[in-house]
Amino acid sequence: MTDNPIAPRTPVSLLGTGAMGTALARAWLAAGHPVTVWNRTPARTERLAAEGAAVAASAADAVAASRLVVVCLLDDASVGEALEDADLSGRDLVNLTTGTPAQGRARAAWAEARGARFLDAGIMAVPPMIGDAKSGAYVFYSGSPGLFEEHGDTLAVPAGTRYVGADPGFAALHDVALLSAMSGMFAGVLHAFALIRREDIAPRDFAPLLVSWLGAMAPAAHKAAEHLESGDFGKDVVSNLAMQVAGSATLLATAEEQAVSAELLTPYMSLLERWLADGHGDEDTTGAVELLDLRRE
Amino acid sequence: MTDNPIAPRTPVSLLGTGAMGTALARAWLAAGHPVTVWNRTPARTERLAAEGAAVAASAADAVAASRLVVVCLLDDASVGEALEDADLSGRDLVNLTTGTPAQGRARAAWAEARGARFLDAGIMAVPPMIGDAKSGAYVFYSGSPGLFEEHGDTLAVPAGTRYVGADPGFAALHDVALLSAMSGMFAGVLHAFALIRREDIAPRDFAPLLVSWLGAMAPAAHKAAEHLESGDFGKDVVSNLAMQVAGSATLLATAEEQAVSAELLTPYMSLLERWLADGHGDEDTTGAVELLDLRRE
Ligand SMILES: NC(=O)c1ccc[n+]([C@@H]2O[C@H](COP(=O)([O-])OP(=O)(O)OC[C@H]3O[C@@H](n4cnc5c(N)ncnc54)[C@H](OP(=O)(O)O)[C@@H]3O)[C@@H](O)[C@H]2O)c1
Ligand SMILES: NC(=O)c1ccc[n+]([C@@H]2O[C@H](COP(=O)([O-])OP(=O)(O)OC[C@H]3O[C@@H](n4cnc5c(N)ncnc54)[C@H](OP(=O)(O)O)[C@@H]3O)[C@@H](O)[C@H]2O)c1
Repeated sequence: MTDNPIAPRTPVSLLGTGAMGTALARAWLAAGHPVTVWNRTPARTERLAAEGAAVAASAADAVAASRLVVVCLLDDASVGEALEDADLSGRDLVNLTTGTPAQGRARAAWAEARGARFLDAGIMAVPPMIGDAKSGAYVFYSGSPGLFEEHGDTLAVPAGTRYVGADPGFAALHDVALLSAMSGMFAGVLHAFALIRREDIAPRDFAPLLVSWLGAMAPAAHKAAEHLESGDFGKDVVSNLAMQVAGSATLLATAEEQAVSAELLTPYMSLLERWLADGHGDEDTTGAVELLDLRRE
Repeated sequence: MTDNPIAPRTPVSLLGTGAMGTALARAWLAAGHPVTVWNRTPARTERLAAEGAAVAASAADAVAASRLVVVCLLDDASVGEALEDADLSGRDLVNLTTGTPAQGRARAAWAEARGARFLDAGIMAVPPMIGDAKSGAYVFYSGSPGLFEEHGDTLAVPAGTRYVGADPGFAALHDVALLSAMSGMFAGVLHAFALIRREDIAPRDFAPLLVSWLGAMAPAAHKAAEHLESGDFGKDVVSNLAMQVAGSATLLATAEEQAVSAELLTPYMSLLERWLADGHGDEDTTGAVELLDLRRE
């Protein structure tokens, strides 16, 4: 259908017109989809109304307006509150609200008990990237394969789509795993800037070095994945644990020289030290993932 | 000179033929430079001798053999030990041994007091990348501008060169800052793998998502640099501190659901929380760099 420019576009109801919901609504409007919006605070729908969205008086009305219902609210609790009085039977509910895997699974069971098909989602983008095909923005989806198959084209309008499985917890799990990795990277970047900031080194000259170095080193994750798949952390080791731990001393000494707190670096270093003490010096560092596992015997 | 294939190449003396030193020596030999090597344990020079290197009987002899002397030993202490009896007057000493900025500065003063010009260096590569122009390998250099100008072409044979200033501590500072950022990224990656490893998600399917997400998000360092340059952390904020702290709760809850220790994530999160409590919720997170500064009043 979407290939035919005169065919009618799938109507979309969108609950939540905060920063992200507004960006999503504008992308669907721009692509010619009939859009019905609802927001708890009605003033935040005015701009979208001016751009052609229908405004529903209640969340229940918005749900009644279209079979495809997209929710982008603050958190999982607000989703439960907003949809409390809505009749979800026969609806296709897509939850773009950030949450945990368990929240995604519980929300799926809740929606299915009310007669809806359900997809949970995790948005890998900030609002300015939405609707810009070149931005690389995408969304993880998991849950009902039928819903994804039927509405995949419509969902692809604001950002790329990646369906990661029928388990409705998987979208959130992928989302949170990537955000967690990013949080580690940002911690490292903050420490790096702290080291140079009192020196005669311009942050704008240093940032490109940082960006290209991190980009060049991120593919080490492929090697880590190989080790995790095989379970053999001693095979094809590029840079072994003992060497990494020895290098940590230079990183800590430099932090001290520069009068920078090492608090963002030390937990990883002490994790690696403990793994070294367990006798894994010749192996890839990835084996230390065991120490993070709280179900470990 | 290096443009003329029949002109003689600059002779290089190299002290230390461990994994990295051996890779460096092979790159110079392959490019036609006369290379004299020395290693504390002589057996580790045999392969290089077979490939055309002259082997010196002592470090002092190696230093005497060429004006350009490159040192790639374990740590700064081993550099002092190895060069104790060498006559450095009139030599151009390039120290490719990893160390701290203060070690680089002290070693420069030490070398200059012995009549040598000195460059300190930080190698941004692993040995397999050395001598491979497409690998992106490079080395930070700082210290004597005259030495770098005269020998820059020779130094560029094993890996790209980046001269970062006359302060001999700057090469190490750049090196350690990038390694510290990488260490944060690797900590985040380890946490991400810990989250998915007991689920039905193949690490090899997940790794490419991680690599492209980290590559896409690393350029946030440019924005951080802008904020650091201007000192105005409230200008052009894409994703403010309050939102990041709110998101942390989902990351921590997910770690708990997956029975993964959050120890690698919590220091950055509590740093951001402290900065939020200081009243910076509407600002870019980069301002939290202040809290790492131990010289802060
Ligand atoms: N912005 C981003 O960079 C980004 C990136 C990826 C994912 N996300 C996710 O997208 C979702 C929305 O984020 P946003 O940036 O649009 O946030 P936002 O601008 O703060 O908007 C929050 C929305 O939630 C509504 N809301 C909050 N509590 C509610 C309740 N109890 N009942 C009904 N509605 C309620 C708000 O309504 P009012 O207008 O009435 O307050 C508003 O529409 C979040 O889950 C966020 O994690 C955002
Ligand atoms: N390998 C990498 O991935 C990498 C990457 C970037 C930078 N680097 C840096 O490059 C330098 C060398 O690393 P590498 O990988 O070649 O290490 P390596 O294979 O362990 O070699 C260490 C070298 O230092 C020598 N050495 C140690 N203590 C000594 C002493 N007291 N007196 C004289 N010589 C001594 C060793 O001699 P023996 O053979 O007699 O033990 C050997 O030549 C280090 O500073 C390292 O941080 C390495």
